[in-house]
Parts: sequence; structure tokens; C-alpha cells
Amino acid sequence: MANMQALWLENQTVTWKNDVPLPSTPTGEALVRVHLAGVCATDLELVRGYYPFTGILGHEFVGEVVESAGAPDWVGRRVVGEINAACGECEACRAAEIAAPPQLSPTHCERRTVLGIIQRDGVFAEYLSLPIVNLHHVPASVPDEAAVFTEPLAAALEIQEQVHIHPTERVLVIGAGRLGQLMAQTLALTGCDLKVVARHHHQKKLLEERGIHTLSEGDILEKKMDIVVEATGSAAGFHLARRAVRPRGVLVLKSTYKGEVQLNFSSLVVDEITLVGSRCGPFPPALRLLEQRLVDPTPLIEACYPLREGQLAIEHAARPGALKVLIKP
Amino acid sequence: MANMQALWLENQTVTWKNDVPLPSTPTGEALVRVHLAGVCATDLELVRGYYPFTGILGHEFVGEVVESAGAPDWVGRRVVGEINAACGECEACRAAEIAAPPQLSPTHCERRTVLGIIQRDGVFAEYLSLPIVNLHHVPASVPDEAAVFTEPLAAALEIQEQVHIHPTERVLVIGAGRLGQLMAQTLALTGCDLKVVARHHHQKKLLEERGIHTLSEGDILEKKMDIVVEATGSAAGFHLARRAVRPRGVLVLKSTYKGEVQLNFSSLVVDEITLVGSRCGPFPPALRLLEQRLVDPTPLIEACYPLREGQLAIEHAARPGALKVLIKP
Repeated sequence: MANMQALWLENQTVTWKNDVPLPSTPTGEALVRVHLAGVCATDLELVRGYYPFTGILGHEFVGEVVESAGAPDWVGRRVVGEINAACGECEACRAAEIAAPPQLSPTHCERRTVLGIIQRDGVFAEYLSLPIVNLHHVPASVPDEAAVFTEPLAAALEIQEQVHIHPTERVLVIGAGRLGQLMAQTLALTGCDLKVVARHHHQKKLLEERGIHTLSEGDILEKKMDIVVEATGSAAGFHLARRAVRPRGVLVLKSTYKGEVQLNFSSLVVDEITLVGSRCGPFPPALRLLEQRLVDPTPLIEACYPLREGQLAIEHAARPGALKVLIKP
Repeated sequence: MANMQALWLENQTVTWKNDVPLPSTPTGEALVRVHLAGVCATDLELVRGYYPFTGILGHEFVGEVVESAGAPDWVGRRVVGEINAACGECEACRAAEIAAPPQLSPTHCERRTVLGIIQRDGVFAEYLSLPIVNLHHVPASVPDEAAVFTEPLAAALEIQEQVHIHPTERVLVIGAGRLGQLMAQTLALTGCDLKVVARHHHQKKLLEERGIHTLSEGDILEKKMDIVVEATGSAAGFHLARRAVRPRGVLVLKSTYKGEVQLNFSSLVVDEITLVGSRCGPFPPALRLLEQRLVDPTPLIEACYPLREGQLAIEHAARPGALKVLIKP
């Protein structure tokens, strides 16, 4: 069996290898040649050892199907892929047959493997394998540089899937990094009165070029926001969000947190705050918005490294204020 | 007191006059010089005598404040205006002090007058008067030709104000005229799986140029749509909508209906359909979307007539399939 290049994570060390066996493709899965991959905060957390994972890192990709046993019409198609490979049998998986959100969904399958995160090799490689049901065809008009953002864009849209954002509401996003920028673009589509807390000058500039208003931390008024989205993953960010949200408002947690955050439950109850945890989102609407050019993630691209320099890519993505770093096999 | 030109409606006849007295501006109101006005289906219905109204027709406008007793900072500002002039005292008006939607709002004030519709002269004239609280400043980057659409665009956004549209939902709009086109643009912003039933070739073309999918009536599958928006104002349109909406789906009525529509209540109950009547909407998000160029209503403009030829403008707007006709004083 042929070998390939890949970035291998083991004991908090990322190594470029050129002798990794090509992924096996069980029935129902497709072999995908990676065109482009993106580095995400979760990759950095895996490298730092916050979650246990050994194998090929990475889960944001666009590529082309090269092998697809039993579904030959997929071969040659340009695709992106949902990262949760579900069992298809548990309650979460069966609930997906009912269309209306927000139900239990296969992204919550208890026996799932997750691309480059849980028991499944990822996309910082020449090839990956994913269930065909996870794949989505990329429209011809969407270039690879935009399509590679489908996964985080879907995660941004998960907010609108979970929370009814009224066009008249005041919405605050805390954090203007990779995901914060995408959420600012998708939340702006609601017509809401949106403000984004950004620390770095280039982050502010990207937002203001789209007519999105930015704030510094000191400008936040207490308890004035209807919906606050916390995207820093830090306790400081959470406490800022808590101060900004109005009574009966909604606080969306759109980040994973290192360790535990101290929380005053009584004040949550007194103010009747709704806390919403939010993770992976729906791919089809993300692709529709890219195709209709209603969002444009490409200005977020800071650099593109070859697979062989993958370690540099990961170091680059970890710099404070860094936006999107891509890896090209 | 000076006179002005205006289009006067009386006994289903529209007459151009050049001797109409300038509107009086009571305390709290501003005198606005009209830059541009738009003809809407409601104007046509008023001309046809569906509602009783005698006076100056028209309610969609962009203009400039020329007099504003007690609020001199408004003078010289370019503005659009909400059409419902509320009493400020009734339950609907007081409820507006609570921010969160959807509450009773001044658009439902029982003692309201309505610009060019109920007991208040309209905008097909050189000048109009409106309460200052109804006015919204137009950002410099939004041209008059776009700003004149603020009122119908706000009406389109009222749907998102009332109904939580999930990005994964299948949404159908029936009717691709003036308001149908605007709703197609605002609904597309949700990322939803949107289809629009359009009868006329030029209506389809405008939508498809934005990547919005169109359907013919015969292509509609029964009971497959999560949300259906009826924008034809005809019984046939309503019955089509009823057939298309899935059990537990939402049917939005975004049009006024001539006379009564026969309705099978039992089937509504059995299928647990939600019917939502939807009228005027919020101006600030409409202006934000125009400023951020996330919607573009200007391709809908078919013609612009001088005030003196206002009757031709109204005849033009009444042609089957006609889109937006403007009037310039």
C-alpha cells in the first residue's frame, strides 16, 4: 500500500512524515485528496495536550474524491466534509431523520469519531477518509480558498440555528480572531445591531471594511446587550460577556474553555440569563452563503504553508491575533 | 401659506394638483422635502377603493428635513420615515419602552394615523409631515435610489422579527413582485434553503442573478416546506402556500387580501400549522443591511416619473409583473 505525507501529532509534538500509510476506506467511506486545509484553535489545543489525540491533525479541508467504493458518482467531485462520523444507530443519529431543528443530531452521536480530533486521522495530509454521508459537493463558483472555510462558517451559523436573533436586537461578539471574524460576518446578515470586541488593529480593520462596528473592552456598557457571543475561550472573556448581557438575554459560548470557569449561578438565575453552548453547525447553509457571496472569508487568510512546513504553520496560527493559516499538501 | 404639487386621491381618482397647501407641522413633527417616493401595492389598492382614503397618496419615501420645530438638529438631515404615527399613550405605545421583540408596538397603536393610508397625507408630494420619532437618518453611503426602499425592506425583515428561520430550513416565497423580490433577498441572508415561485421571466432573472433559486407553481412538492411566505395577496396564492407547508410548519401572510379567503380550519389544526400575519417592520436593520450592501434593491427600479405624471406612474405599477416605479417631485 502506498504511503503519503502527513503531520503527525504524538505527545504534544507535531512531526512531518512522508511514510504514513494511506487511510483505509471502509464501506460507505470515500478517499479524498486534500487541496487545502485550515488551522483552527482546536488544533492548537490538541497540540498543547488539552485533549488526548495521537494521529494526523486537522479537520478543516477542501479536496477531491479519488475513491468511493459503492458510490462511483462521487469520484472526481470537489468536496468539503462534516467532521463528526456518526454510528447511524443511536438516539442522536436516529433523531436526525426528523427535519426540524434543534433536535438531537448525529453531531452528538455518543459513539462518534471526529476528524483529526477523536479516534480518526485528520486532514493535514495528502489524503483523508470520511463517510460519504459527511461529504458536501462544493459549487464550481466557490474557490478552494473560500471552500476551506466551510467548516468554521457552519460552526458560526450554528448560532442562528440555536438562537432566534431578531433583526432589532443588540448583539455583541467578544473576540475577533478566526472564528470571531466569521461569526461577525454571519451575524451581520441578520441585520442586528452588531458590535465586536476586537483587540488587534488588523482584526478591527477587516471588520470595519465590511461596515461592522468594533468596540474596545472599556466601551462595553453593562447589561445592555440582548445576545452576547463569547469567542475568546478565556475566563476573562466569559466574565466580560456576563457583564454585557441584559436580564433575560442570551449568552452563547462559542469556544472551548481550558479547565473550569468560576460562575455565579445565583446571578444567572436572578437575571434569568440563558446560556447556550454551541459547537459544530450545518454545512449546506454555509455553502449557500459562500455561493451567493453573502460572506467572504478569504481576507482572513494570512499565510499558506506546504505540508512539509506544517510545524511553522501551526506556530504561525498560535501567534496572538493571528487569523487563518492554510496548509497545502 | 405656500402651495405645493401633490397627487390627490378622491373617489378612486388620482389627480395631479399644484395648489395643495403645504402640510402643517404640529409640535413634535418635521417638514420633509421629498427626494424620491415609491409606488407600492397598497397604493394601488387604495386607488381601487379597497380602503377608504381621501388625500395625498404614498408612503415610501426618502427626503430631507427642512423644518423641525423644537429639534433643530434634524434640519438638513436626509431621512426615511416609519409610516405609523402613534398616539404615544395607549398600551401598544407604552409597551415599546420594553426592548425585547415581539411585544405590542406603536405600529399597532389603536389611534394611529398612517402616512398616505389612514387620516394622514402621504408622500406623492413636494413635502410631507411626520413625527420626528418616526424619522431615521440615512447614512451618507446609501443613495436615494436605495434608501427609498427602506420601508418595504423593513416590512420584509418583519418576517425574521416574528419567525425564527433556522439556516437549515426550507423556505418558499410565493410571488416575486416588488415585495417578493425584497423578501427573497432578506430571507437568503439566513442561509436557508430558499425557493421563490416567480411567474414572469424578468422576475426570475433578477433572482437567479443573485444565486436565488426559482420555481414554477407546478414544481412545488406538497407539504415539504418548513416556512412558506405568501406574497401574492390572492386566494390562489394562499391555497398554493397551504399545500406547500409541512405539518407543524409556518405560513406567513405578507400581503393584504381583497375580501375573504375560504379556509379549512380542521386541516390547519390536524397539521398544526402556524399562521403568522406580518405587516410593517423595523427600519434600523433595513438601513444597516443597505449600508453594508448586504441587500441591493436598486435593480428592481423599472421607471421614475415626475410628480406631474404621477397617474402614469400608478398605471405602470399596476401592470402585471411590474416591479418598482418611483416618483420624483
